[in-house]
Amino acid sequence: MKNFDINEDPHRRFNPLINEWVLVSPHRAKRPWQGQNETISTEELPKYDPTCYLCPGNVRANGMNNPQYENSFVFENDFAAMKQDEIIFEDDIKHTFFKAKPEQGISRVVCFSPRHDLTLPEMEIADIENIIKTWQKEYTDLGNIKYINHVQIFENKGSVMGCSNPHPHGQIWAQSSLPTQVEKTQNSLKSYYDKNERTLLEDYVKAELKAGERIVIENDHFVALVPFWAIWPYETMIVSKRAVNKITNFTAEESTAFAKILKQLTTKYDNLFNTSFPYSSGIHQSPTDGLLHPEWHFHMHFYPPLLRSATVKKFMVGYEMLGESQRDITPEKSAEILRQLSDVHYKSTVK
Amino acid sequence: MKNFDINEDPHRRFNPLINEWVLVSPHRAKRPWQGQNETISTEELPKYDPTCYLCPGNVRANGMNNPQYENSFVFENDFAAMKQDEIIFEDDIKHTFFKAKPEQGISRVVCFSPRHDLTLPEMEIADIENIIKTWQKEYTDLGNIKYINHVQIFENKGSVMGCSNPHPHGQIWAQSSLPTQVEKTQNSLKSYYDKNERTLLEDYVKAELKAGERIVIENDHFVALVPFWAIWPYETMIVSKRAVNKITNFTAEESTAFAKILKQLTTKYDNLFNTSFPYSSGIHQSPTDGLLHPEWHFHMHFYPPLLRSATVKKFMVGYEMLGESQRDITPEKSAEILRQLSDVHYKSTVK
Ligand SMILES: O=P(O)(O)O[C@H]1O[C@H](CO)[C@@H](O)[C@H](O)[C@H]1O
Ligand SMILES: O=P(O)(O)O[C@H]1O[C@H](CO)[C@@H](O)[C@H](O)[C@H]1O
Repeated sequence: MKNFDINEDPHRRFNPLINEWVLVSPHRAKRPWQGQNETISTEELPKYDPTCYLCPGNVRANGMNNPQYENSFVFENDFAAMKQDEIIFEDDIKHTFFKAKPEQGISRVVCFSPRHDLTLPEMEIADIENIIKTWQKEYTDLGNIKYINHVQIFENKGSVMGCSNPHPHGQIWAQSSLPTQVEKTQNSLKSYYDKNERTLLEDYVKAELKAGERIVIENDHFVALVPFWAIWPYETMIVSKRAVNKITNFTAEESTAFAKILKQLTTKYDNLFNTSFPYSSGIHQSPTDGLLHPEWHFHMHFYPPLLRSATVKKFMVGYEMLGESQRDITPEKSAEILRQLSDVHYKSTVK
Repeated sequence: MKNFDINEDPHRRFNPLINEWVLVSPHRAKRPWQGQNETISTEELPKYDPTCYLCPGNVRANGMNNPQYENSFVFENDFAAMKQDEIIFEDDIKHTFFKAKPEQGISRVVCFSPRHDLTLPEMEIADIENIIKTWQKEYTDLGNIKYINHVQIFENKGSVMGCSNPHPHGQIWAQSSLPTQVEKTQNSLKSYYDKNERTLLEDYVKAELKAGERIVIENDHFVALVPFWAIWPYETMIVSKRAVNKITNFTAEESTAFAKILKQLTTKYDNLFNTSFPYSSGIHQSPTDGLLHPEWHFHMHFYPPLLRSATVKKFMVGYEMLGESQRDITPEKSAEILRQLSDVHYKSTVK
């Protein structure tokens, strides 16, 4: 019998945002790895790639020409997962086991830069502020469409995350329903707000700043931290200090601070394994259903798959799919590693 | 405006086992793929590999020697995610945001065969019956340990599923808590049973057999089907026809029928892309907490990642991680494809 040591002993942690547990096995990072290695491209990308369907002036799959855009550029996804068609649906196929309903939506692609070879950490703050402006505009425009109740802004970065083109870009899927993960989050946020009249994340950020050990970056308006309940080895979350519920409510100062923390965090990520660090990231914020949603609190999740090196990722498979998410390194340890990494990109030459 | 056509129009489907939705985009399978391809090994494996730590007689990482086993062989995982140590835990670190508790558990590895080169579809029915016996014994032995309340039997197959050794084997993670996914399932099963006095899956299987279109294989005691709410392109579930709540309650006939359907399903899987088909699979059944659990109904999930070919998988990334699982082909179409595949393994020579 020994006393519980959260840094050493296997344990479960609770995620109050989605009401799920994660299994943490601190000792397990020591096991040897004989499994699959990812192939990473170390090839230098050109500034412009004539075969890239996202570069300015080039032709896309549907035959359309991209404009000679200079900042960011948004277009409708040619292979969207949802369609805008209005569908007549009689709820008579409602059935305990065969419950289905049509879903209306719009998918857009957001090119972050005309430059084929620049990722977020390598861009200037002003360029990132431009992307934030684009996200704000899209959130507003899409959110104003009558049947759109949720706008999911996200990025898949790196071929290991299913991204088929290194040209820096993200996506937006806007739709009539609240997606499963967002609905779970909303339920938690709402019940906390109804009870405490403060947002869950406002109080969480305060508790984390006090604890200190999971903070990666802090500036005047945002905090980047490894959540206490993170499932991916180097998962992080950027949270606003103020209880702002959507990106369109940022002050000018907040936009700049958000751009800065985005650049810093993604720079640290690249510096971790001296590679263009793959991840899926995305913003969770207020739905666009016309309600006020004071319970919502802007945050951006980063889910990076890498575990040990630029080529060895964490596999969320068997036990994780059937049982529960499991991690091999504590969030505190990951935060410490990220915190200590330089803010200067490993590729940047000395100025 | 058009009428809802479930075979053509984007829609959401509801999974009553875990109360979550999945987004189905039937038209999306048509999009071209320029992304990452998996590398698959087409190398012929030897019957015995002197460098394999699972082959009979060989030495494992911890220095122990495997016996000259003849059927299946079980040992404790040398790099277990949980430990058996009893931990003293005072619930004073209970906190809204920092909720953690120690978890006790045991991980075991189950070698399916002494042969390095045989996977389930290539084994004899009698060999598969032997694996089922091993699962039954482990479920009983582990379940009898006082602090073990759940026994998760699963297999990760293929390097794309994080499996580091092609020697046929699965794992068992037994622990004190109900893992997240199992707890969700139990809640659904229980509320259905309390209301209907039949198990949810008994009624579901009947409804599926009546509908027919998602059935892949049926024998006297089991059905293999693509669930109405499947998220992976070729996801299936093997369900017992009888409301049997755990593997140890199988009749001798049921064990044989289960071995047969396992062989048939995995054969069809291999025949789909003429490759040793990767997947994570696992059994969901009654917890071992000493209660009766009449709501539980034995089933085995198969989560295979491949989508288009032996090298192109479905990426569950950005939208899927932040929003909701999404699939690009309907479950009905997948079931039809699997149903029509031969039961004779593509590698087997004409007898
Ligand atoms: O124990 P293994 O086979 O080395 O590890 C594999 O299966 C485990 C259980 O699903 C996962 O946690 C690991 O990420 C995966 O690589
Ligand atoms: O739309 P893309 O970038 O081709 O596709 C990628 O992102 C989508 C949204 O996360 C996923 O559904 C796809 O599986 C993935 O390959």
